[in-house]
Amino acid sequence: MRPGATARDEILDAAAELFTGQGFANTSTRAIADAVGIRQSSLYHHFSTKDEILGELLGGTVSTSLAFARAVHDDSGEGRQEVTSAARLHAVVLFDGSQLCSSRWNLGVLYHLPEARAEVFQPFMAARTELRTIYGELGQELTAVCDSDAGLGDTAFRLVESLINLRADGLISADSASATADTVMILAGLKRELPAVRAASSGLISRFGDIPVRTPSRKSA
Amino acid sequence: MRPGATARDEILDAAAELFTGQGFANTSTRAIADAVGIRQSSLYHHFSTKDEILGELLGGTVSTSLAFARAVHDDSGEGRQEVTSAARLHAVVLFDGSQLCSSRWNLGVLYHLPEARAEVFQPFMAARTELRTIYGELGQELTAVCDSDAGLGDTAFRLVESLINLRADGLISADSASATADTVMILAGLKRELPAVRAASSGLISRFGDIPVRTPSRKSA
Repeated sequence: MRPGATARDEILDAAAELFTGQGFANTSTRAIADAVGIRQSSLYHHFSTKDEILGELLGGTVSTSLAFARAVHDDSGEGRQEVTSAARLHAVVLFDGSQLCSSRWNLGVLYHLPEARAEVFQPFMAARTELRTIYGELGQELTAVCDSDAGLGDTAFRLVESLINLRADGLISADSASATADTVMILAGLKRELPAVRAASSGLISRFGDIPVRTPSRKSA
Repeated sequence: MRPGATARDEILDAAAELFTGQGFANTSTRAIADAVGIRQSSLYHHFSTKDEILGELLGGTVSTSLAFARAVHDDSGEGRQEVTSAARLHAVVLFDGSQLCSSRWNLGVLYHLPEARAEVFQPFMAARTELRTIYGELGQELTAVCDSDAGLGDTAFRLVESLINLRADGLISADSASATADTVMILAGLKRELPAVRAASSGLISRFGDIPVRTPSRKSA
């Protein structure tokens, strides 16, 4: 039995397995229906095209992290400015990275498929762009109070997404996401502040880590 | 007219355009032959399968950088240990990153295709693994003489490959590769040494940047 409370969830899970395992173009809606054990006509009751399924799956790879990043970004933190600003970026990197490392299927490998440039993927692209923008703003906020270069947020975003490649290469370990968050702090020149930043970052994850978002396709392993 | 002195080069160029533009699975050898303006039977004179073409293209994305990285790794540099070690990693990041940013087609987006796990891609996988290993060794060498964390080389490798994503997102600029090399140095705690490191890195690129390698598929834009 596949995880998921509904037929829709089961379809998404089967599609994710097939898309990441044998490729998007090589997977038919018929094969997805077969993997779920339903008729192809039943699948079309939930999704009108294969693109729509991929769009929803890709959206699921950013929606939880985006909701978390928005909440952290809007929060008016207390405490020392340097630690507070650092903890925001640290928490977003750690949370987003953990999602990418622990999702049931490594769907990020499909981000740059030529097929994923169609109109139906616009909501995903827009969400990913907004997430990238929040990284950039958190980075600027931090750069303003410590000795780090502009572009810190962009570098953080790149390092987080590179966890997708690391996972595809079979090189993910349990602390890959937290090591990435720490790396970003070292890049910001805050190596000595790490214990305080980690503690404040944990606090943000406790407070905002389970905000509800519509993510039918994002399941933890 | 496509770039390339030979029919073989033209086939590789056409295939690279189609694979990155419309997807690997969606491209037939017939379509590649049509794009070159030759018969499909002529294409089979040069390549027996579509996988073989992809394997050669993927290999071309690492072979030049690997040859450069080997040469830099084997070189016994002169000068202050810290700058010498830093310059090696800086030069490899800059050279490899520049290749990925300026190659005619952004073939790196095909690295994590499920289809690219077959036996025929082993030479590419082996070359990419060797390149990653050299990054790791250069990182360790640098970590031994300065205040940077273990894992510096792996982080550098991830940042370089993330240029592929940045390029796919249309966000590459002329200095993306050099900014990435500088970021790695900042991560190593060598921000103040940057001018000296950049100068030594340029020296390495001048000395080893045009070593001959067999890369029929790697062309600069």
